[in-house]
Amino acid sequence: MRVSVLGTGMAGQVLSAKIAELGHDVMVGTRDVQTLLARTEQRSANTQPFSEWMWEHPGVRIGTFAEAAARGEIVFNATAGLATLEALEAAEPQNLAGKILIDLSNPLDHSAGFPPTLSVCNTESLGEQIQRAHPQARVVKTLNTVNAYVMVDPKGLGDGDHHVFVSGDDPAAREEVTLMLQEWFGWEHVIDLGDISTARGPEMYVALWLRLFGALGDPMVNVKVVSGQR
Amino acid sequence: MRVSVLGTGMAGQVLSAKIAELGHDVMVGTRDVQTLLARTEQRSANTQPFSEWMWEHPGVRIGTFAEAAARGEIVFNATAGLATLEALEAAEPQNLAGKILIDLSNPLDHSAGFPPTLSVCNTESLGEQIQRAHPQARVVKTLNTVNAYVMVDPKGLGDGDHHVFVSGDDPAAREEVTLMLQEWFGWEHVIDLGDISTARGPEMYVALWLRLFGALGDPMVNVKVVSGQR
Repeated sequence: MRVSVLGTGMAGQVLSAKIAELGHDVMVGTRDVQTLLARTEQRSANTQPFSEWMWEHPGVRIGTFAEAAARGEIVFNATAGLATLEALEAAEPQNLAGKILIDLSNPLDHSAGFPPTLSVCNTESLGEQIQRAHPQARVVKTLNTVNAYVMVDPKGLGDGDHHVFVSGDDPAAREEVTLMLQEWFGWEHVIDLGDISTARGPEMYVALWLRLFGALGDPMVNVKVVSGQR
Repeated sequence: MRVSVLGTGMAGQVLSAKIAELGHDVMVGTRDVQTLLARTEQRSANTQPFSEWMWEHPGVRIGTFAEAAARGEIVFNATAGLATLEALEAAEPQNLAGKILIDLSNPLDHSAGFPPTLSVCNTESLGEQIQRAHPQARVVKTLNTVNAYVMVDPKGLGDGDHHVFVSGDDPAAREEVTLMLQEWFGWEHVIDLGDISTARGPEMYVALWLRLFGALGDPMVNVKVVSGQR
């Protein structure tokens, strides 16, 4: 399958590497390819400069947001939350129309230090904003509740006995994404929360995730939902 | 121990009954005792009129917010989040001074239907507002992430293999409350998140809890934290 991953940070790198490893044809999208490849400094402690990363992942293509979005049969949004709406605008609505757009971003505002706050929440979510800006895309919010390494390898944490969520207005898209999470990454426990407004739940949960990260000192952390039914 | 429980709704009833059953001397606090006892209608499907409930729990005393707060060596806030600051004002700061004040409320605004939104979040929490309004109280936020029945009987859900959190500025108070959660209710998994600002995490998590309740149709739901460390 032709897969696009928008965003070249840690999530974009880890996700692209995994999807390419599965044998899919991956193109990573970025604002400006030359600027990206010219950059030699690390963006964060766990993230390689993209030019180095590309060297180690020769099968992965690189293009503009629009080129990547146009090429993919399915599109992952792995851009930073505060830059997401602009990045998707640059990807151009017609390139996303009719496609599943998997949004794993969080609207984190780091301007006041750690822990970051959310730039939207409570009566709104980034997932909803994306769906409104791209009414023809089939937006599914998922995976935003875990670290990139857990996203693509849930079994690497607690034998995979923990949950991830899907939210989106298109029930068939939620189902397809649920299957993809299972088959591509090994997610055995996916809870369908419902329409895209339910993305407020997993996005706001990130405020707890950040405090768990702070208290436990471990970014490999997720939750298992325990109820009378499962 | 003399224990006060402020609030006469489901959480106040369930908590008071359990604490009294443990042999403690419980007083429930309310705004106006006569009004409360005169009320004969149910406040919600799972909540008895308090006058009926009292009949079945003859050991539990009833008083005003101030009488209850003055009497207790430890105080639970089980009032509705939107009414909490007013209730604690009525309880009078000097009656709370030096005491552990366990806050299990959520700032839920039900005015626009289900799911409710939060009246404060992101850059603020109800826990912090309470601590600021009552600087002499030793506020510990906990138990707000679960249904009242799970609060007092965690083992009744998934054999107790799930977590609860404590947040508060006083480390000794967090420790005392952690022990109390274990000894009184049987909580085996308590995570100390840190100062009272960390209450934003568990309070915002409630947005996810509400969607899980919506999706699973089960109010007996909690999360187990899964990390490399536990």
